[in-house]
Amino acid sequence: MYDIAIIGGGPAGVSAAITAKVKNKNFIWFASKAVSDKVAKAELIKNYPGLPSVTGAELGWTFGNHCDSLGIERRAEVITGVYDTGDKFTLLAGAKDYEAKTVILCPGVVASKEYEGEEKFLGRGVSYCATCDGNLYKGRNIAVISTDKSFEHEVEYLASLAAKVYFMPLYKNSVVQSKNVEIVMKNPVGVTGGMRAENLVFKDQTLAVDGIFILRSSIAPSTLVHGLRTEDGHIFVNRRLETNIAGIFAAGDCTGRPYQYVKAAGEGNAAVFYAEEYINKKSKSAGGN
Amino acid sequence: MYDIAIIGGGPAGVSAAITAKVKNKNFIWFASKAVSDKVAKAELIKNYPGLPSVTGAELGWTFGNHCDSLGIERRAEVITGVYDTGDKFTLLAGAKDYEAKTVILCPGVVASKEYEGEEKFLGRGVSYCATCDGNLYKGRNIAVISTDKSFEHEVEYLASLAAKVYFMPLYKNSVVQSKNVEIVMKNPVGVTGGMRAENLVFKDQTLAVDGIFILRSSIAPSTLVHGLRTEDGHIFVNRRLETNIAGIFAAGDCTGRPYQYVKAAGEGNAAVFYAEEYINKKSKSAGGN
Repeated sequence: MYDIAIIGGGPAGVSAAITAKVKNKNFIWFASKAVSDKVAKAELIKNYPGLPSVTGAELGWTFGNHCDSLGIERRAEVITGVYDTGDKFTLLAGAKDYEAKTVILCPGVVASKEYEGEEKFLGRGVSYCATCDGNLYKGRNIAVISTDKSFEHEVEYLASLAAKVYFMPLYKNSVVQSKNVEIVMKNPVGVTGGMRAENLVFKDQTLAVDGIFILRSSIAPSTLVHGLRTEDGHIFVNRRLETNIAGIFAAGDCTGRPYQYVKAAGEGNAAVFYAEEYINKKSKSAGGN
Repeated sequence: MYDIAIIGGGPAGVSAAITAKVKNKNFIWFASKAVSDKVAKAELIKNYPGLPSVTGAELGWTFGNHCDSLGIERRAEVITGVYDTGDKFTLLAGAKDYEAKTVILCPGVVASKEYEGEEKFLGRGVSYCATCDGNLYKGRNIAVISTDKSFEHEVEYLASLAAKVYFMPLYKNSVVQSKNVEIVMKNPVGVTGGMRAENLVFKDQTLAVDGIFILRSSIAPSTLVHGLRTEDGHIFVNRRLETNIAGIFAAGDCTGRPYQYVKAAGEGNAAVFYAEEYINKKSKSAGGN
């Protein structure tokens, strides 16, 4: 069991991981990429104090070096769910799970909206995880939506199991080549069905499928954590970066504007202190256990 | 009239100034030193993301270079009072004053406590400003308390006016040399008097004086801004870094723990955005004026 689980590889997640390491905390850090897409794509950042003029790629590289210099480990698994399991949280990452006393959410702002019906059918025909659920669809017809090229090996894996894959890459130049994969260059609008998901719905078309995989580099926080309070698309936090769920903190763009590197880094840093205080207070009230 | 006045030269003030400059704001920045003492004295900082291992002095130097590279001007005047004068704020800096639509307070945490009676007699025998009030004490006996060597020229100035100066330097190796200056190496405990301040009180002694100058590199926020809400020695702010006074924001250590460089820098950055929104909203509600 870890004291702190940090989810996200943007400036908030990086800062939280660095501070957790420097404070010698027992923590685990999930960041599916070395640096978030949003950082990597920033043209020129002039107001990150101490780094007078850096591109997003340079900032990412500098952050990465900082982490490396401290020997910080980054796990590439995508966390697909966080569950309150009594005195701790259980984090699902594909077929694996991890336990932590506190969670710091740094998912950034999720650009892609959830599809209509997505949450309703999650676990009943809709899945976020090829590794965990792929086997359920051997010889069946499935749809796969992916926001990111880095998931293409998962699409190939699913194609090796399924009879037929409708593949909706939400990016350009996909190179999935399996013969049973049919690329559909359209963004769906929703999922419909009865007890289970049965159709992937487009504006002008409906595909009847047995299962739908949605592979995103970040999952909407309210989907990731059941019952998490959000406001205007942001995770609600107070001045101590506490969400409405005791033990779960949030930092960075996900907590609201301004979307700024140093604001995010500052919150990631502070969240570690608040998480630490939460653990200390809880262990005291439990009589030192 | 400036849109934003930033007070303080620590990481929050630096970050606010950098972001205000990059956003091309009409602002003025008061920072009595190139870098705050607290930063300069930090031994080794390992968790400011992007600068893997820097001393406080190096961080200060790096921040200073960043400001210079953007051509940011820093004013050395110490602000001794911020007054709400209707639609704007008036900031007193010695004999000068400045006007701004919004103020971002980044004073850090004031280490030295106020003296008993200090606030009561402020403006009635107690002064923070040698330049403004020195002339009132020509040929009189005064006491001068100073937290910082950088004020010694003000002590000399006061000595050139007063008959006698009792000087309490709260640091080592003071070099004030005027003949009418008597150095007293003790920290007072309070000020007493009737209508005006009459005595500077020590644990074991009382000095009868006509005036008392207290020269500090930072003034307690609640003294600086009348009516400012504080809690446990920190300026009360909400998630938008708004204090209880509309138009006045606060950022950095002054808003509460953790006392961390990147947390302070993050707040300084965000405060500029909130100040900007405040101005925009106000100008809209005033019909575009």
